[in-house]
Formats: sequence, structure tokens, C-alpha cells
Amino acid sequence: MLLLLRQVAAQEITPDAALLQIRQAPFADLGYAKIDLHRGVRQGVPEVIYGAGKTAAQISEIVRKMLENGQSRILITRLSAEKAALLRSIPAFRFEEAGGIGLVGKMPEPDGIGSIVIATGGTSDQHVAEEAALTAEALGNRVVRLYDVGVSGLHRLLSHTEEIMSATVIIAIAGMEGALASVIGGLADCPVIAVPTSVGYGASFGGISALLSMLNSCASGVSVVNIDNGFGAAYQASMINHIGGNHENTVS
Amino acid sequence: MLLLLRQVAAQEITPDAALLQIRQAPFADLGYAKIDLHRGVRQGVPEVIYGAGKTAAQISEIVRKMLENGQSRILITRLSAEKAALLRSIPAFRFEEAGGIGLVGKMPEPDGIGSIVIATGGTSDQHVAEEAALTAEALGNRVVRLYDVGVSGLHRLLSHTEEIMSATVIIAIAGMEGALASVIGGLADCPVIAVPTSVGYGASFGGISALLSMLNSCASGVSVVNIDNGFGAAYQASMINHIGGNHENTVS
Amino acid sequence: MLLLLRQVAAQEITPDAALLQIRQAPFADLGYAKIDLHRGVRQGVPEVIYGAGKTAAQISEIVRKMLENGQSRILITRLSAEKAALLRSIPAFRFEEAGGIGLVGKMPEPDGIGSIVIATGGTSDQHVAEEAALTAEALGNRVVRLYDVGVSGLHRLLSHTEEIMSATVIIAIAGMEGALASVIGGLADCPVIAVPTSVGYGASFGGISALLSMLNSCASGVSVVNIDNGFGAAYQASMINHIGGNHENTVS
Amino acid sequence: MLLLLRQVAAQEITPDAALLQIRQAPFADLGYAKIDLHRGVRQGVPEVIYGAGKTAAQISEIVRKMLENGQSRILITRLSAEKAALLRSIPAFRFEEAGGIGLVGKMPEPDGIGSIVIATGGTSDQHVAEEAALTAEALGNRVVRLYDVGVSGLHRLLSHTEEIMSATVIIAIAGMEGALASVIGGLADCPVIAVPTSVGYGASFGGISALLSMLNSCASGVSVVNIDNGFGAAYQASMINHIGGNHENTVS
Amino acid sequence: MLLLLRQVAAQEITPDAALLQIRQAPFADLGYAKIDLHRGVRQGVPEVIYGAGKTAAQISEIVRKMLENGQSRILITRLSAEKAALLRSIPAFRFEEAGGIGLVGKMPEPDGIGSIVIATGGTSDQHVAEEAALTAEALGNRVVRLYDVGVSGLHRLLSHTEEIMSATVIIAIAGMEGALASVIGGLADCPVIAVPTSVGYGASFGGISALLSMLNSCASGVSVVNIDNGFGAAYQASMINHIGGNHENTVS
Amino acid sequence: MLLLLRQVAAQEITPDAALLQIRQAPFADLGYAKIDLHRGVRQGVPEVIYGAGKTAAQISEIVRKMLENGQSRILITRLSAEKAALLRSIPAFRFEEAGGIGLVGKMPEPDGIGSIVIATGGTSDQHVAEEAALTAEALGNRVVRLYDVGVSGLHRLLSHTEEIMSATVIIAIAGMEGALASVIGGLADCPVIAVPTSVGYGASFGGISALLSMLNSCASGVSVVNIDNGFGAAYQASMINHIGGNHENTVS
Amino acid sequence: MLLLLRQVAAQEITPDAALLQIRQAPFADLGYAKIDLHRGVRQGVPEVIYGAGKTAAQISEIVRKMLENGQSRILITRLSAEKAALLRSIPAFRFEEAGGIGLVGKMPEPDGIGSIVIATGGTSDQHVAEEAALTAEALGNRVVRLYDVGVSGLHRLLSHTEEIMSATVIIAIAGMEGALASVIGGLADCPVIAVPTSVGYGASFGGISALLSMLNSCASGVSVVNIDNGFGAAYQASMINHIGGNHENTVS
Amino acid sequence: MLLLLRQVAAQEITPDAALLQIRQAPFADLGYAKIDLHRGVRQGVPEVIYGAGKTAAQISEIVRKMLENGQSRILITRLSAEKAALLRSIPAFRFEEAGGIGLVGKMPEPDGIGSIVIATGGTSDQHVAEEAALTAEALGNRVVRLYDVGVSGLHRLLSHTEEIMSATVIIAIAGMEGALASVIGGLADCPVIAVPTSVGYGASFGGISALLSMLNSCASGVSVVNIDNGFGAAYQASMINHIGGNHENTVS
Repeated sequence: MLLLLRQVAAQEITPDAALLQIRQAPFADLGYAKIDLHRGVRQGVPEVIYGAGKTAAQISEIVRKMLENGQSRILITRLSAEKAALLRSIPAFRFEEAGGIGLVGKMPEPDGIGSIVIATGGTSDQHVAEEAALTAEALGNRVVRLYDVGVSGLHRLLSHTEEIMSATVIIAIAGMEGALASVIGGLADCPVIAVPTSVGYGASFGGISALLSMLNSCASGVSVVNIDNGFGAAYQASMINHIGGNHENTVS
Repeated sequence: MLLLLRQVAAQEITPDAALLQIRQAPFADLGYAKIDLHRGVRQGVPEVIYGAGKTAAQISEIVRKMLENGQSRILITRLSAEKAALLRSIPAFRFEEAGGIGLVGKMPEPDGIGSIVIATGGTSDQHVAEEAALTAEALGNRVVRLYDVGVSGLHRLLSHTEEIMSATVIIAIAGMEGALASVIGGLADCPVIAVPTSVGYGASFGGISALLSMLNSCASGVSVVNIDNGFGAAYQASMINHIGGNHENTVS
Repeated sequence: MLLLLRQVAAQEITPDAALLQIRQAPFADLGYAKIDLHRGVRQGVPEVIYGAGKTAAQISEIVRKMLENGQSRILITRLSAEKAALLRSIPAFRFEEAGGIGLVGKMPEPDGIGSIVIATGGTSDQHVAEEAALTAEALGNRVVRLYDVGVSGLHRLLSHTEEIMSATVIIAIAGMEGALASVIGGLADCPVIAVPTSVGYGASFGGISALLSMLNSCASGVSVVNIDNGFGAAYQASMINHIGGNHENTVS
Repeated sequence: MLLLLRQVAAQEITPDAALLQIRQAPFADLGYAKIDLHRGVRQGVPEVIYGAGKTAAQISEIVRKMLENGQSRILITRLSAEKAALLRSIPAFRFEEAGGIGLVGKMPEPDGIGSIVIATGGTSDQHVAEEAALTAEALGNRVVRLYDVGVSGLHRLLSHTEEIMSATVIIAIAGMEGALASVIGGLADCPVIAVPTSVGYGASFGGISALLSMLNSCASGVSVVNIDNGFGAAYQASMINHIGGNHENTVS
Repeated sequence: MLLLLRQVAAQEITPDAALLQIRQAPFADLGYAKIDLHRGVRQGVPEVIYGAGKTAAQISEIVRKMLENGQSRILITRLSAEKAALLRSIPAFRFEEAGGIGLVGKMPEPDGIGSIVIATGGTSDQHVAEEAALTAEALGNRVVRLYDVGVSGLHRLLSHTEEIMSATVIIAIAGMEGALASVIGGLADCPVIAVPTSVGYGASFGGISALLSMLNSCASGVSVVNIDNGFGAAYQASMINHIGGNHENTVS
Repeated sequence: MLLLLRQVAAQEITPDAALLQIRQAPFADLGYAKIDLHRGVRQGVPEVIYGAGKTAAQISEIVRKMLENGQSRILITRLSAEKAALLRSIPAFRFEEAGGIGLVGKMPEPDGIGSIVIATGGTSDQHVAEEAALTAEALGNRVVRLYDVGVSGLHRLLSHTEEIMSATVIIAIAGMEGALASVIGGLADCPVIAVPTSVGYGASFGGISALLSMLNSCASGVSVVNIDNGFGAAYQASMINHIGGNHENTVS
Repeated sequence: MLLLLRQVAAQEITPDAALLQIRQAPFADLGYAKIDLHRGVRQGVPEVIYGAGKTAAQISEIVRKMLENGQSRILITRLSAEKAALLRSIPAFRFEEAGGIGLVGKMPEPDGIGSIVIATGGTSDQHVAEEAALTAEALGNRVVRLYDVGVSGLHRLLSHTEEIMSATVIIAIAGMEGALASVIGGLADCPVIAVPTSVGYGASFGGISALLSMLNSCASGVSVVNIDNGFGAAYQASMINHIGGNHENTVS
Repeated sequence: MLLLLRQVAAQEITPDAALLQIRQAPFADLGYAKIDLHRGVRQGVPEVIYGAGKTAAQISEIVRKMLENGQSRILITRLSAEKAALLRSIPAFRFEEAGGIGLVGKMPEPDGIGSIVIATGGTSDQHVAEEAALTAEALGNRVVRLYDVGVSGLHRLLSHTEEIMSATVIIAIAGMEGALASVIGGLADCPVIAVPTSVGYGASFGGISALLSMLNSCASGVSVVNIDNGFGAAYQASMINHIGGNHENTVS
């Protein structure tokens, strides 16, 4: 902006042309620039495409454009096997069925502060967990998977106390009664992001029981994302795990 | 009934008089007798008066009638301190404010199979817990209190593993996220009766979160009673703790 | 542990090797052992596999491993007829379609205190009832089935007063308004475990009406499990029906 | 209307004046007349004033106007003792605190087909029951009160089978699990109007549990009114109990 | 019972044999008889089979048994066209697809006090309405159909004021906002039974909006049955429409 | 902005000073200006203070500042009589208790297109209605009050057909079943804004029943605001009633 | 009516014949006429057929009748592609799949006061948005589409400030958290009609989250229609956008 | 543990005494130590006392014990002014009424990575905001308060873009429709913790609307804590803001 104003002062550009430039690029010049670009602040962060509700053709087209724009790494969430099969022609594409995740480009080297522990209550939470794990890895995090450590078999969880104690951030994923978040929140000394899952029967109400349980956790340091939202948990966990790095960028 | 029929056959009673007797006492003679009397099957079981919604005068009158009928032990639940003060003239009456319980007569000696463990998640669950504990004691059970062993401080619970493992039946009382029932259900090898409490803030919804959490417990052997219903949990726990005794009575 | 410490004292094992043993087997030595094994405390108790959400191949593999480990009796719940057909090659396997239950090995002889009465409100509750009944039988209980004794035809229920009065524990299964639990709770003198079912129309809300009704039962001695959870009710009922036996084991 | 038109034809009234008359009295002349007056169709039916939300002064004023208009019998519902005390100066006024009902004028002789049975599950439902009973009596019905016959003590209800079988219409009032309506619906052969009450604890949710239970009643012939709406149940019950009378009026 | 007792007194039967008889027939002799038979009190009332959840074979078998027992008229509700096609071999069977009703035997002549008006808010409520209408006709009632008279086109409803004013009982069927019951309740001078339907979009929640609206009707004389329960409304309406007749039977 | 740029070009202001000006006034210069001022676009529109949750002192201070800024007309909503008494010293202040509205300055002359009809179902909706009516009048609208025209007495509503037909916009206010909005929506040919009120009993749930009913209205042209939000309805209604005026302003 | 009365006065018609005319045409003569015809008040307004729940044959028949009655423009909402394919033989029929809208006849020229802005939060709200847009166009409005301007990318919304500021009425369509309505309500100076959509995952509950969010909007001038009800929003928006026109019609 | 084992090996302690030590201190020696002490890991972290539900005497006693144990800084949450007045005798105690927070000892110097921005939608959210702000400050964080920047006046929020862009973590607090979290989530590039507040009217349902809105936020990087839980949000935010520090501790 200052540059532009100086050009005006130097008569290098007319006031009318300057006004046009300002109007056309209000976000780039007036402090909003980061909004537009903020997902790409750190080097190598992938673009994310929400796959549900888009056809394979639409996804393919979006990927193609992103690649043209120089994006080297793309994450496609909520991708079905059927759609994934139609995307095989994309170069460097692979599909992780466990989490419903499609990836274009190579996974980055982990560059976060520490590791993200992803713990699940049961095997049926695995799909959500893998969505979280693959997202976190694609965002440059080292991930430790602690699956099937639900509270009804407490010894399984306790045998992993060391991983829990040394995590930078933990994602606790559970359906049914969702008690896992509270127990881990009590054991750990780092932020815990709880993900209720829609797994359950009877009065689990598609994840509401677990959601309420997690919101009411008596452990400090626990926050909650939406039901089955493994991606959202991993996205925030990655932000937390890169805070040191962001901070350095900001101050330097 | 057979006796009556024989009296008819022996002309000791007219058919019309016999019919009257049958009509007047249908429950005593036709297999329904136990319905009327079933709460007094075991020797010394107290009568129970639900105190909420009754005036002190009404409670006093009911107690007086029960004492006249030879009932030596009476339990009054949901009794406020105000009402209790007005009941002081009842002989052998005492009031336990912690559980809102009034007692007439002496506590019985424990005669159950083993002990009932009553565990709570936090100090604010204590009122419900004492309602359960005093009820259980008044019904002839040995009670072990494990208060404030919530899952966010798991070590407090684990330091009582022995009591949990050796209980005959456990009452798990918790508000907020209600995870205690699942964790205890996983540790214990006996029936667990879960009591959600209305303690909590925000989205605990007066106990609904804990109720749903407990209904969805992934641990086997857990059943649930209504919110804050310490009495109901203790009543069923006492039934379970006396099953051996009942069985002997039944077969002998 | 004491043995290990004595070995250390006797120099039969180095402190470092002892530490390793303690770390590797924390649950076996520190009072947690029962957790791992607690489902096998009584002789002959079957392992339980939750069939929903597992493929026939996964179930088959789990069964094979269990058999290798010496488990002679296996219960598979929530098993569809399609999956069951694929499990036919398992030796001594049979499928009970009525309750969606697969069984490997012979049913045990009943060894509980008395019998478990399973009562249903209507014919449409039968699937849940059979899940409960077969589970209870597989866990070593004598089961008395009282099906279709709903409260709108009270005489059907009353004609079974004798069975109700002599049960050790009763499982009351009903959808719609769920009144069965209250009526049976009023008639019986033993613990009643209520199972709401998702049967119903209009404002039954997939079992919520029955669930709320049962939680609010005005009869003492009634607790509730999750909607359609026949297995859970039977598991707890079996615990109760074996309490005398457990107690003997514990004290001897 | 025809009369008016003939007056126009006979020039006894100008068309403009006739139009004015028609506009001013559209309901009296065009078939809507009954709307305005339909509550007074049967001789002696009282006017009803909903007392909640009105001051004693307002109620007093309304009563005075009704008496001036020749209304000899007035029913005031949801009336508190405080307001009732301020209404004592009204001639022939009396207050029934049990049902929160004020009455002006004498109760009518019963003129219905038969009797209305009002059954309650517990003593705490009595206030709603008396609102229903007094309303029904004020509307000219013979009322049979069966209070405290809840389903957890089935023998109390069964000992009144005769009254239930011979009722013209039954009002079943219950809180908590609301099972009374189903059981009575199964026993009776006449319409049953169910009234859920807000009595209850924990998950009774101010009457919702009872409401849902009653809506899902498996017994035929049961309909439901709003929570605690004793007046509404009695009003409809009285309509039903006077149908024969209405019919005679209609055909004669 | 008196007869039996006299036989005992006369030594015509031994006391033991008499006891057996009493035990075997408790309902026939002790005032419960009507329970068993109460649905057949009026001559010609059909038996009702709830078709949903039963196979065509099961329905066919039940019908056959009923016919053998002399039942000449049978109503099958919630019957799909597919099942109905398989029932064609039953003599005198016909299927009314509009209401999902199967009928065996001839429709009875109307013998009620007056007529039952069945009003619907829209054409999409017609299926529920026909279930009600055919049930009412099969139970011996004259039925007046007022379909598609919803309150957003008030003139359609008002043009039928005469039918509404002269009904003995009205069934008001509506989805969406369910306002029809209130408007008819204000117009009519007879009992109104409201049936919420599951028709609607968005926040209609499968009929809950209409259900709540009807329960909160500000018009007197309105009661409500479950969502889509056309049969239940018609059953109660028929009871009301036959009260005069029942009364005669009872007193004669 | 253009002016500023020209000043820069003319060296009348340095680029740095211009940048500062732009940063300090981004909303005034870049098209956001209207945001800040948009409530004052039409001449004489009052400022609105939401009175609930503010002390009388706070309100008084805000009013004083507004008056200093030249605002001649101020509307204070949700104002209690207690707070209003403390505001008496404000010049030209008056308090309308019926709607809980305080006004500073004179009411404006109506300058809208036509009139706003405000209809209520019952007398208990009057407080919300007066909040709406006084707000509308303070915003420069002619208001027609049609109170107590609920659908259970349809003739009262129909006798005002003319007012309804000639309104520019209608605010329909009702609690309980909320049917008023649908009926008016069917009669009227203009936008209807529905306001559910928290008036009601039993299953009215503090206005939810009315809210759902109104959202599901089968009449076209009906939208809904929050429960008891008379102000919000009036604010939008006034916007609609001034659209012609606004439009003229915009094009001129 | 006055004409008729004058005819009577002039003996041109007998009183009986006049009465018959009045009875047969109550709506045409007594002020209700507009009810019947009110949808056709403005020239060229299309008839609307709700397509869901009607077969293609039924729709075709209705269209044919409307065309016979001289209706030149017909709008069919909630029309599936399958049904639309079967309607191709209707002259001047076209199908807009994006909004599920069928149109018969030509779109009218816009004749409203200004333009209706339709803004959506995401691409998945487009179906509802097109239903609204095409409806608005068919009702004679100029429509400005601002799609995919959700609040998580605020710059996209802000770059359209000009369109928002100059709209006559805005329809804000959003699922998930529904924040769009509040943000637009804060920016705009005209009525905003909010449409929650059922788009979302987890705890969005089929649109309830967005619905509640919109009802609780802290911005003035926002009202809400039912979930996914694009048609309803457009219908009311068109009413608002034609108010000037209506007003002129009314006064002229 | 190794030390202890070596002592055993060295015969410095008997095996029995060693066993006793192990049993008494299982958490200190077996990896659970951090559980007990984890809140004190960083130097100077205050102990937290939840003040609600505790008497002033209880709080005073707990504070005294903590001070004796060397704790120099104590935070008391949910403290009323009444209780605070009774705590004045505690040395170095002060009370912050705005957030209901009591503090013992001096506030620490901020030692986190960056600053925590706390933004609120309206002035009525201030109490929750101050609970969060004071908690965060007591935990050693620099706090930036952005109060009253709700989305209906977007310019207020946008004028603080710089603070939002440079935050390390943001706490977004809002009632009513809760849109603030989404808008900030879209602007910011750091973790956002959303706190729904119970502020609101009508269908805000004590914070549920805001809660659902925040859970469904379409912005990435947003998680949610319980309604009004300012403390919980600040606790997790502080964890995040100290992650760099923790990490250094862990690796060093």
C-alpha cells in the first residue's frame, strides 16, 4: 500500500488507477492478505479438498488446477473407494482406504515440535482415527497410534502411559460413552482434542452420548470437535504441534 | 384356600361366607399374597417412606401406624433437615443429613453375601452416595465407601483396586461425563449399578450426559438407574447381595 | 512380587532383570492380573465376540485363535445369517437365527443359583429376548421364557405369577411404553433388569420412550440397560445368578 | 336471514340497513351461531375461567359480568389459595384447594350416561386428579375416584376391577413411567383419557417420560392430553359421558 | 364361584378338585373374565390383527384360527400390498390399499349413535385417514370424510361447518403444524381426537411438531393419539360413538 | 479515497500520512461506511438499547451520550419497571409497562407504505405484542392491534378479515400450539412474521411447540423469529413497510 | 351483497333465491373472496405445484387443468429428474435440475422494487439456493446469486459488500453453523430471510444447528423459514419485493 | 524402583519392606508419578480450587493447607462475592469479581510463546471472558482482550485483524448464535478454542444453540469446550502457549 501511495506521490500512477488497484486487491494490501493465503504460510502444507459431495470428475479437475498452480501436495478427505478408483490417473496419487484419504504428492518429513498421539477406544473407531492420523502426517507431524485402548480394559491404556506422558498433543477418539478423553486427560500433561464417533448402539444417538460425555469431561485441558471429525482434530493438533515453528517464523 | 374349601366341605362355613372371604382376601389366598407382603419376606427389612412431597405431620402419622403394626425399623428417604427437626419426638429416630435419610429403630447387622462398594466420581456426588450407603446399611449390607475416585485422577481409583475386585456388587455414582461406571465395570468382576447424578455444568443437562454415558458403557455387567436415584441402586444392590440368602429361604 | 523381591534378595536375579520383569508384567503382578483374566474366573465361561462390524473372515480368525488358546466355548453376538453361513466350517459351530447368536462348543450345564426369567411385552421383542436367553444359557444359567405377556393383556402376565415370584433375577424386555418392567418390578421380589427395545411406532423414537419409562419405574429393584441390549442384560443377570458361587470361590 | 331478506323484500328495512345487520352479526345468522354459544348448548353448563395469569381483581370482574348475564354456575381453574381468599365476597363462591378450583353457584346434579372413573398412580398426582374430578362434577358427571392405584402395587388396582369395568369413560392420571394408562386400557372396555403429570425425578423431565409412555400405549382406546391438564381430560370425558344426551337433543 | 362352593358343600366335588378349578380359571371366575373377552362384548365386533412385522403366512394362519373359532369379521391393519396379494385365497378377503387395511367378512351396518367425521389437513395425510376411516367402518360406524381442509385455506374447512357441528366425534388428522385440531376443536361441540402425521419437511421431525402442536391445543375437548395412529383414533372414536349402546347393554 | 489519492498526487499529504488515514478509517472510506451508520439511514430512526442485563445507571449513561451525539429518539427494550423508575430524570422519557419499552423523545409520524397488523392468540401474549407494537410505532409505522384472536374461537379472527386483507405486513404472535400464523398466512396476501411466545403449559416447552408449529406452517409467506422476540419481528416488519421509501432513497 | 339486497328490495329476486345465493357463495360475497383468489392478485403470478409426493401422472393432470383454466405460468417444486422426464410432453415445459424446479410457460419480466440477493455459505447449499432463485425469478424478481460466500472465508463475502448493501431483500442460505445470516444481517440494511440447510455432518442434526443459530441471530432484521425451504423464503421475499407494487394496486 | 531393587539386592531393605514401599507408592515409582504431580511440572503453576459447591470455610482450609505445602500461587474459580468477602483474611488474597476469580499470591510474569487473544461476541459474555483471561494470566500468559466484537457488527471485529493474525492461540467466546468462532477461525492461522455461553433468549436453550453452532464450524482449527467453561478454555490455551517451553523441558 505504501509503495502504491509513493507511486502516486511520484506521479508514476494516477490516483484513479491506484483506486482501481486498491479496490481490486483489498485483501492483498490491507492486512487481509493472510486470509487468502494463510493455509500456505508454512512451506509444503498441502491443500485440502473435502471429497464428500463432489464427483470424481470435479475432484480431478480441482486437483489438476492446484497442480498447475504449483501446489505439490494435496489431501482429499472423505473419499470413497469408488471415487478413488476413478482418480488413479492423477500422477503420484495414492488412496488410503482405512481413513478415506486420497493423497497427491509425497508425505512430508515431520517438522513439528514433538509427536501427536492418536488413541481410540475400540477397533470400530479406526476409520476416524486413520482420517486423523493420515491428515496429521500429511501436515508434517510424527504420529503415534494407540488403537483399541478403551477404558473398559484399563490395562491396555495404562501399558502405554509412557507414550501418553510424552506426547505434544493427543487426539482421543471414542464412541459409545466417550470416557477415553477424560481418562487420558487425567493422565496427560498436554492438550487433548477429543473426537466423539458415531459408533454405538441404542441410546448412543449417533455420537451424541460420546459428544456430551467429552464436553463434560472433568479433566482439564480437553476440548472437543464435531462427531467423526478426525480431520478437524488433526488440523488443530498440527497447528499446536507447529506452534514453536510458527512462533519462530513470526518473530524472525 | 384348600383349608377354606375343606371347611366348606365339612359344612363348617357356608358357601356364601366362604365366597365373601375369598373376595375380601384375593391376594392372600390366590398366589398374590407375596405381592402384599413381599417387602417383609426377610426378617427385619425396614419399611420405606418416600419423604419428598409429604409433610412432617404426614410422615409422623405413617411412622406411628407402622410402629403400631409391629414394624421395628423404618427408613425415610428424601427427608429435609427442616422436616427431620419436626420428627424428633419419634422414639429411636435419627437423621443423617448427608444422605437426607431418616431412620427409626436400630441399624441391622449386615447379613448379605459380601459387601457393597459405593464409589463416587467427586465430592459433589456425596449426597446421592450417602442416600445409597445408608439405604444399603439399613437393608442389612456391609458398605465400603470409595468417594472422590473420579477418572480424571486415575491413580486414586487404582489404589482401591483390591476393594473393587472383592466387592459383591458395586454402585458407581458420577455426574459430568459419568465415565466412572465404565472404568469400574472394566476392573470389576461383579454387577455394577450406575447412578448418574445431576451434578455438572453447561451441557451436562442435569444428569442426562452422565445417564447417556452410562447406558452406553462399553463394559459388560453395568446397568443403570434414574438420575440421583441412590435409593433405587441400593435397593437393587441389596437384593443382589442377599440372593444367596433368599435362595436358601426359597429352597428350604 | 514378593517372590521376585526374595529372588533379588537371594541374588538369584539382578535388580535390572527384576525391574524388566516388573515393567513387562505390571498387570500380572500388581493386582491388575484379574483384569486381564477376569472373564475366565469361573470355569467354562465362554469368550464373547461382538459380531457386528466384523467380517466373517475376521470372526473366523478370532475364533481359530481362541480355540488354539484352549477356549472351548465361544459366543458370537449380533451375527447375521449371511456371516453365519460363512462360518459353517468351524467345528462345533451352530447358529441361532432368532437371537442372532453363533455358538462354538457345547452349551454348559446350568450352574447358577436359580433361574433367569426373560419376559417380553410382545412378539416383536423376541429377537432381543433370544439374544438375552441364549447368552444367559451359554453363561451357564437356566432360563425361563415368558414371551408376549405385555401389560395391555394383564391376565397373560398374571397367569405366570408363580414363575415371576420364584425367579432369581428377571429380564423384562419391552418396547413401546415399556410398562412391563414396572408391573413385573411390583410383582417380583428379585432384581429386575429392564431392556427397552426399539420396537414401536410414532413417538416411540427408536426405544427412547421405553427407556425413559423404565428409568422412571416407580417399582423398586429395577435397573436398565441400553436399548436392544439383550446381551448386556443377560451378562449382568448371569453375574447375579452366580453370586453365591462366586462368593464361595472367593472365600474358599 | 330469510326473515331479514323478507323484510327487505317488504321494504320494512332498507338494503343498506340490512347489510349493516348482516355484517354485524355474521356468526349468528350464517351457521356460525353455535360457535359463539356452543359452550352453553346443554342447560346449566358452567362458564370456565382460566385462573392462572389473571389477578383476583380481573377474575372478580369477569365473574361479576357473567353473573349479570345470567350465568348461574362458574368454574375457575388453576386458582391459587391467595387469589381465592380475595374472591370470598363473591356470593355462593367456594374454593377447593385440592384441585385449585373455584366454584360459583351450586354443583349440578349428574346428568351423564354413566360415571367417570378417575384413577391415579400415586398420591402426588392428586392435585391434577382433583382438578379433573371437580371439573367433571361441575360439568354434571358422577365421578368415581380411584386414587393411588399405581402399577407397582398391582393388587390395589385389581381390587377395583369392577369400577373399571363399569365406567363410561376413564381418566388415567400418572407421572413417572405412566404405565397406568396401558394397564387400565387393557382392563377396560371404554375410552381412556390419559393425563401425564409432571411428578417425577431424574429423567422424568417434567412429565415427558409419562407423556411418551402414554402415547405409545399398546392398549387400544387410549388417547392423551397435555401434561397436568386435568381440566382438559375432564372436559372431553364429560363430552363423551353426555353424548347420549346430546344425541337425543340432536335427533329430537 | 358360588356354584362351585355349593358343589363343595354338597360334596359333589372334592376340595382338591375345586382348588384345581379355581387355579385353572382365575380370570373366568373372579371378575377378570371380561378381560379375556372384552373385545367381543358387542355383537359383531371384528378381531384386529396388527399386520406390520408379521409374514403373510403368519397372518393367514391367525385368520384361519379365528375363522375356526367362529369369528366372522377380521380387520388386518398396516398391511402391505405385497402381503395382501398372498392372502387372496382367504374367503371373503378384500384389501383397501389406501389405508393399508385388509378385511375378512362383510362390513357391518353402522350401529353407532351418530357419525364420525374424519378431517385431514392435506392430501398426504390420506393414508392415515383411510386407516382410520376403514377401521371405524369395520367397527360399525358411519364415517364422513372431509379430506384436504387444512387451515391455510380456511374457506375449504368453513364450507363444511355443518358436518363438523353435527358430528358425534371428530378425528382431526394433520402433519406439518397440526393446527387443524385446534381450529376444529374451536368449531365443534363434540370430542375431537387428534392424529399427528409424519408428513412434513425440515423441522417437522417426523410428526413431533404436529404432535406438540396438538397437545398444546388451546381448544377444549381435544385429545391426541400417537403419530400416524389412525387405527387408535378410530378405535377410541368408535367406543365413544357406541357409548349409548354400551350403556344400554350394561344397564339391561 | 479518491480525494485522498489526489491529495497524495498533489503532494498535499505524504504517502505515510495517507496510509495512516486509510488504516484508521477503513470502514468510512472503503464501502463499509454504511455498516457503521446503517441504522441511521432513514431520517429520525431511533437508536435501540437492549435493556436486559444493563443497570439503570448504564442505560442512563448510554442515553446521555446518544443525546449528546444529537440522537433525538431512543428506544429501550426489555426494560423493567424498577429500572424505568430510576430513569425518570431523563428528559422526555416515558415508560410503557405493557411492552417493557422505554422511550426518549417523541414518537415519529408514521411514514411507512401501509400499516402493520399485530395479531395475538391470547391475552397472555400481550406483553410480547406490545413490545412489537411500540417498537413498530417508534420506527415510524402505523400499527393495527388485533389481540386475542386465537384459532380456537375462529369467529373472533374472521370478524377482522378486512384488517388482515389490507395489511402491508402482519406480525402473528402466539404461544401454545402457534396455529395463528398458519391461519393468518392462509387468509393474508402479505408477508407474515410469526413470533412464538413462551406462554403455555405442559408440553409447550417454553415456546418450542409454537416455534416448531410456525416453522412448519403450511401457508406460504410465513417466516419466524425467536421465541418472545417481539422487537425483532417489529424491526423486520418496519424494514418491509419502508421498502418503498428506502427504494426511492436509493434510486434518487 | 348490497347489490343482491337491492335486487331483493326491487323484487327482482325472491328472498329465498337470495338466501340460496348467499349460502352458496359465502366466500365470494362476504369478504372472503380474496382468500380463494389471492394467489392470482398480481397479473401473471404462476400457480405452484408441490411436486414431492405426487406422481408424474398426477402432476401432468394438474398442469393440464391449470392450462385449461387459462393459467399461463406454472411452477413445480421438489421435482425429481425422473418425474421431469415423464413431463416432457407438456408444451413449454422445462426442467431446472439444479433446484429441482419444473416450469411451464415463460419466465416473467422482473417487476419488483429491486433485486433479491441469494447468498449461500457453501457449494453444497446450491440446490436449496436454486430452488429459491428460480422460484423468485418465476415470481417476477431480479435475482443476484452470491454463492459460496461462507463466513470461514470472510473476504469472499466482503468482496460483495456492494451487492449486499443495495439489495431490497436478502435470502441467506447456510448449513453447518449457519453464521452467514448473522454476518449478512449485520452488513445489510434490508430484511434478511434465513434458510437453514440440512447440509452438515456430526452434530449438525440435519439442519437443526443452523436453524437454532439463525433463530438466535444477534443481528436485527433476520427471520427464518424451515430447513431447506428455499421456496418459502423466495415466496416471502417476492412478497416483500412487490410491496410497493401491491400498495399501488391497493390504493389505486 | 531400580534404587529400591538394588537396596534389596544389597540387603539394605527386606523384601517385605520393599513390597510395602512399592504398594504404598505405586504412582511415584512406576511411571504414574507425573499423574500426581503433573499440574506442578512447570515452575510456579498455581493450584486450582473449584469454588462452586464449596463453603468459604472449606475453601479457606484448602488454601491454608496448600500454602503450608509451599504452594505460593492459588487460583479459586467460580467464587461468589459473598464467599470472597469471607476469605479476606487470607494473606495476599484478592478477588476479581468480573470473572468470579480469587487469587492468592502474585500473578506470574508471562512466560508463554506468545499471547492468548480472548474475543467475545457481546458485553454479556464478559463474565466468562474474564474467567478465561484471569485464569490464563494466572497460568503465565500474556492476554489480549477483544471484547464485544460480535459478527453482527463486523467492522468492530475486522478493525482488530492484526491482533487476531498474530495470536498464538485464540479463545472465542459467544452466546446466541455463536458465529464468532467460525469468523475468527476463518481469519486466524492459529488454534481457536470456542466457548459457548449461556447468554441468550428464546431458542438459545442456555447455550446449546451456540454450542452446536461452534461444533459445526466450517472453519478448520476450531475446537470447543463446555458451555460457560472459560477456565477450561484458558487451561488448554495455556498448555498450547507453553508447548515450546514444555518441549524444551522434555528434550533437555
